[in-house]
Amino acid sequence: MNRILLRPDEITGELAILQGRRARHVLDVIGAQPGDELRVGVLGGPIGSARLTRRESDSITLELRSFEDPPAPSPVTLILALPRPKVARRVLIDVAAVGIKSIHLIGAWTVDKSYWGSPLLTDSAIDEHLILGLEQGGDTVVPTVERHRLFKPFVEDRLPGLVENQRRLVAHPGPVVDCPRAVDGAVALAVGPERGFTEYEIGRLLQAGFERVSLGSRTLRVESAVAMLLGRLT
Amino acid sequence: MNRILLRPDEITGELAILQGRRARHVLDVIGAQPGDELRVGVLGGPIGSARLTRRESDSITLELRSFEDPPAPSPVTLILALPRPKVARRVLIDVAAVGIKSIHLIGAWTVDKSYWGSPLLTDSAIDEHLILGLEQGGDTVVPTVERHRLFKPFVEDRLPGLVENQRRLVAHPGPVVDCPRAVDGAVALAVGPERGFTEYEIGRLLQAGFERVSLGSRTLRVESAVAMLLGRLT
Repeated sequence: MNRILLRPDEITGELAILQGRRARHVLDVIGAQPGDELRVGVLGGPIGSARLTRRESDSITLELRSFEDPPAPSPVTLILALPRPKVARRVLIDVAAVGIKSIHLIGAWTVDKSYWGSPLLTDSAIDEHLILGLEQGGDTVVPTVERHRLFKPFVEDRLPGLVENQRRLVAHPGPVVDCPRAVDGAVALAVGPERGFTEYEIGRLLQAGFERVSLGSRTLRVESAVAMLLGRLT
Repeated sequence: MNRILLRPDEITGELAILQGRRARHVLDVIGAQPGDELRVGVLGGPIGSARLTRRESDSITLELRSFEDPPAPSPVTLILALPRPKVARRVLIDVAAVGIKSIHLIGAWTVDKSYWGSPLLTDSAIDEHLILGLEQGGDTVVPTVERHRLFKPFVEDRLPGLVENQRRLVAHPGPVVDCPRAVDGAVALAVGPERGFTEYEIGRLLQAGFERVSLGSRTLRVESAVAMLLGRLT
C-alpha cells in the first residue's frame, strides 16, 4: 500500500477516520505515529498527503493537507482472454497499478469456462484487486472492467466501437520480435490465453483491424507477457 | 511446460525414458498418445522434437527426431535486490523464460535478512525455478545465479568485473519516464527492493557507472517492474 485510498464519503471537512485493513496497515505495518505524514488519495479524485492525528487500537484519524492530480492514465485498452483466476487477479492488480483504465476480459476457445464462476472474479473481488493495484501504483481512478464470455458477439458487437480511432495490436508468439515501441496515442492491446488464440480468433481480430505483434518465439506467462508488452508500447 | 527438458544423461542413442513430473505432465496434462510429437530440449544443448513411442502408468519413452539451436539469450545481466522469496521465485521463473543468463541476487538496506534462509532460495529450489522458466520459455541453457548478501563487498569487489563494457542502468521510481528503449549490446540492469535502494546505495551504483532510469512515478511490484523494464530495453 504505497498510497492510502479514501472514499469521498469517508471525508468530513479535512478529516477522515478509518478502520479495518487500511487502519491496520498504518498501525501495524507502517507503524505511523501522530504527526507523521502519509500518502493518500481520494477515490476518483486527487492524490495528496495527510497527517496522522490520532491512533486508536483499531482506527486512525487523518487530516488531509495537500492535493495534486493523480498520475496520467495509460493510453492502453487491454483486451485479455481470461487467464486462470489467480493469474487474472495478479494481472488486474498490475494493470491497475500502471494506470490502465479500460479492461475487457473475454472468452476464447481455450479459456476454461469454469474460470468465469471463480470467487476471485466476482464484481466485489475484481474491485478489491483493482483497489490493491491503485494503492500500489498511487492512483485513484478505478478502471472499468467488462466481462465478455463469448468471443464472437464481443468481436462483432462490442469491439468495433471500443477500438475506433485506436491502433490495434494482438500479441501472438512468433519467430521475430516485432512489437512496436513507444506507440503514440491510444492503443488497444489484445492478449490471448496461455495456449494462444485459435487461427479463427486471430483471423477475426485481423478483420477488425488488429496487427499481429510478437515478443519473439518464447512463450511467456500471461502476467509477464502483459507487463513486457506494456513496457515496450508505452 | 511448453518444452520438455531432458538431461544429457537421460538420453541413450535417440531414446529417453522419463518418470516423475515430466512423465505425469505428458500423461495427464497433455494426454499425449504414442505417435504424438512433443517439443523437447536437451539441457545446455539443442531444442527439437520427439515422438512419444511408449506410455506406461508412470513413465514415457521419447524418440528424439530433430534438433535446432535454442533461442538467442537475452543481453541483460540482472542485478536484483532480493525480494520476498515467493516473489523471487516468480521473478526467477520469468527471467529464465525470457532468456536472461546472468542473475545476481544482492542484499540492500531494506532487504529482510531472513529471506536468504528461505527454503524457496536453496540451491536446489533455485534450480527448480530456473528449469520451470526454461520449460516455459522453451530454452535449454540454465542461467547462473549468484547470491551476494552484503551490498558493499558486492559493489566493491564483484560489480566492476561483472559490468565491464556493459551499459549500466539502475531502475528507481522518478517523476519522468526516462528508461531507454531497445538498448544495443550488453546491459546490466539493477532493480532495487520494493521500498527502493537507499540514497547511499544509489550513490554507490552511480559511482560504478550506472545511470538512474525510471518507468515514472508509479511504484510497481518487483515482478511487474522487471518485466516492463525488460520489455522496454530489449
